[in-house]
Amino acid sequence: MNWLDEIRWTEDGLVPVIAQDAASGKVLMFAWMNRESLALTVEEGRAVYWSRSRGRLWRKGEESGHVQQVHELRLDCDGDVILMKIEQIGGISCHTGRESCFYRRLDEGQWTETDPVLKDPKAIYGQAKPG
Amino acid sequence: MNWLDEIRWTEDGLVPVIAQDAASGKVLMFAWMNRESLALTVEEGRAVYWSRSRGRLWRKGEESGHVQQVHELRLDCDGDVILMKIEQIGGISCHTGRESCFYRRLDEGQWTETDPVLKDPKAIYGQAKPG
Repeated sequence: MNWLDEIRWTEDGLVPVIAQDAASGKVLMFAWMNRESLALTVEEGRAVYWSRSRGRLWRKGEESGHVQQVHELRLDCDGDVILMKIEQIGGISCHTGRESCFYRRLDEGQWTETDPVLKDPKAIYGQAKPG
Repeated sequence: MNWLDEIRWTEDGLVPVIAQDAASGKVLMFAWMNRESLALTVEEGRAVYWSRSRGRLWRKGEESGHVQQVHELRLDCDGDVILMKIEQIGGISCHTGRESCFYRRLDEGQWTETDPVLKDPKAIYGQAKPG
């Protein structure tokens, strides 16, 4: 049985993917893959997501250079979520220029920004498209 | 503005939640919350999910005793994913009796079990209902 067939895809043919820094354990981002992008992720050893907003393959880092090199893929007990351990080239996962997308913490009933912007998104993206 | 209103809920009124061990950084499980369950999670300081399969609130540990005490909640850049840092009482998150639900690793094209069962699920659940 093909490992791709063991995944329980959503009705839209997607699976949610948690990207975690392989060294620090920090959770960096959350995105989606379809069958093609997951197969490419393994073939190429770098994260290839399915961009739901753009409706196309999204090779993480294709514009920013912030490629995610894949160290390990894990599947959960229900077969419908993937945990991907990566090395984040450039140390920036988030399109806001931060290391992680989870840069807001709930403090006393408010989402509070806790993590610094490491690089101005305008300097990362020539025009204003995340990637 | 209420912090709950800043979340971009799915059409079904849900938000995906990544549960991470606050001490070790290990990603333990992935589940969903609705507005009520997220509010209860904060009020009670323990993870309260929305069980999509059972269509009801699911106080994690209600049957197993494997309660998740909440240390921190984080929201991602798009406002549609939550990262929750927890202490896992009993050291078992997965209904299979393992620490983490992500106990299978892709090795040479096969999902390979890498993590041990710490406790027989039959000993965790009187009947065979995960919780």
